[in-house]
Amino acid sequence: MLALIFDLDGTLIDSVYAHVLAWQKSFTAGGMLVPAWSIHHKIGLVGLELALAIGRELGRSVSADEAEELDKRHGAIMNELLPYPEPLPGAAALLHRLREMHVPWGIATSGDRSGVEKALRSLGLSNNATVVCKSDVDHAKPEPDVFLACRERLNILARDCFVVGDAVWDMLAARRAGMLGIGVLTGGIGRTELIEAGAYRIYGDPAEIDAKRYELGLVIG
Amino acid sequence: MLALIFDLDGTLIDSVYAHVLAWQKSFTAGGMLVPAWSIHHKIGLVGLELALAIGRELGRSVSADEAEELDKRHGAIMNELLPYPEPLPGAAALLHRLREMHVPWGIATSGDRSGVEKALRSLGLSNNATVVCKSDVDHAKPEPDVFLACRERLNILARDCFVVGDAVWDMLAARRAGMLGIGVLTGGIGRTELIEAGAYRIYGDPAEIDAKRYELGLVIG
Repeated sequence: MLALIFDLDGTLIDSVYAHVLAWQKSFTAGGMLVPAWSIHHKIGLVGLELALAIGRELGRSVSADEAEELDKRHGAIMNELLPYPEPLPGAAALLHRLREMHVPWGIATSGDRSGVEKALRSLGLSNNATVVCKSDVDHAKPEPDVFLACRERLNILARDCFVVGDAVWDMLAARRAGMLGIGVLTGGIGRTELIEAGAYRIYGDPAEIDAKRYELGLVIG
Repeated sequence: MLALIFDLDGTLIDSVYAHVLAWQKSFTAGGMLVPAWSIHHKIGLVGLELALAIGRELGRSVSADEAEELDKRHGAIMNELLPYPEPLPGAAALLHRLREMHVPWGIATSGDRSGVEKALRSLGLSNNATVVCKSDVDHAKPEPDVFLACRERLNILARDCFVVGDAVWDMLAARRAGMLGIGVLTGGIGRTELIEAGAYRIYGDPAEIDAKRYELGLVIG
C-alpha cells in the first residue's frame, strides 16, 4: 500500500513567484533590500524561519516579532498580487486519478489554513481532503513533522510514502521522515538542486507524474 | 586587453521575478494559463520570441500581432508591479571598479531603451555607458547580435570578451559570439543549467565576481 503526500505551494498550485515578490516587497517595507533569488531558494520554509534566515544572510538580527510582522505583511501583499492562484498543470487530474485508484494521498504544507482552503477550492476539491498545515504541528518544514502527521492520518508506513514537493526543504524533510522524495520543477528550483537535496526522482509537473506513475509503482492492479 | 559585456535584467538589476509575474498576468489577460516556472526559463529572450515559444508549448498558435500585444501588456503590468527595480548586490561597485581598472565594459540587453535608462539611473550610472538594446540590432537574444554589436563599440576582440548573464540564452549567444560566458545565479536559474548551456564559470552575484575577479584574469596590473 503506497501513499502520496503533496506539498502545496509550487507543487499543486502556482504561487511561488508571487510569494517571492510579496516577501521581497515586505522586506523592502521593513527597510531590508533582499535579492529575489535569495528569497526564492527559501520558499517552502515556514514564514518565521524564512525571515530569520534572510536576516542571518544580511548579517542583521531579525527579532521574532519583526519576523512575524514581515510574514503578516507578506501575506497581505500576496493577497493583492495573486488573489487566486491557479492549479499547476495536471494537479487536479492527478489527485482525482489517485482517488480512482484508491491510493491514499494528503497535503502537508508550511502554509496556514486560509491559504489551504483557497487552494483546495482552486483544485476543485472539497474539504474532506487530508491536510496538515503549520498550525497542526509543533515544528514546520524543514522539520519532518507535517509529513509524519500526514502519514499518521493516512495510516500508511513512512517507508511506503512518497513526498512530492518543489523545494529542497521538502526533500530534506522527506529524508528525515524516512520517505522517498519526488521533486517537481514547478517551483522553479532546478533538477540538480533537488537531486542534491535527496530527491529520488524528478518530474516536470503533476501531469508528468500522472503520465509516468508506473515508475513509482503506481499502477492499476 | 579584456572586456566585460553585461546582460541587464537579472544580472545587474533585480527584475526577473517581477517580469515572470507580469508575463503570467499578461498571458492570463490574453486567455492563456501559463505556469510561472515555464515563463521563468524563457526570461532573457526578446519579448516576441518569448510569447511565440510559450504559444508553441501550449500547442496554440500565437500571431506576431498577438505576441506584440502580450509584450506591451507585460510592460505595463511590470511598471505597476516593480516601478523601480533595485540593483543586485555588488553591481554598481563592480562597474565602478572596472572603470577604475580601465577595463572596458558594456551592457547588452533584450530590453528596450526606456527600461535601460531606468536601470542605469538605479545603478547610479550616467548615460555615457556603452549600451546595446534590442532596437539597435536586427536579431535579439538568443542570436548573438547584441553581444557582437557591443564588442564592436568597445573595440575589443570577441575572444577577449566575457559575457556576464543570468540566462541560458546569454550563455548560448556568448558561445555563438565566440566569447566566454560567465553565469550569475541572481536570475534564479540554477548553476547546472547555466553550465550545461556553456557557462565557463558561475558566480552567485556581481559582488562575488568582484571578489574573485582574479579568476578571470582581472587584476590590477
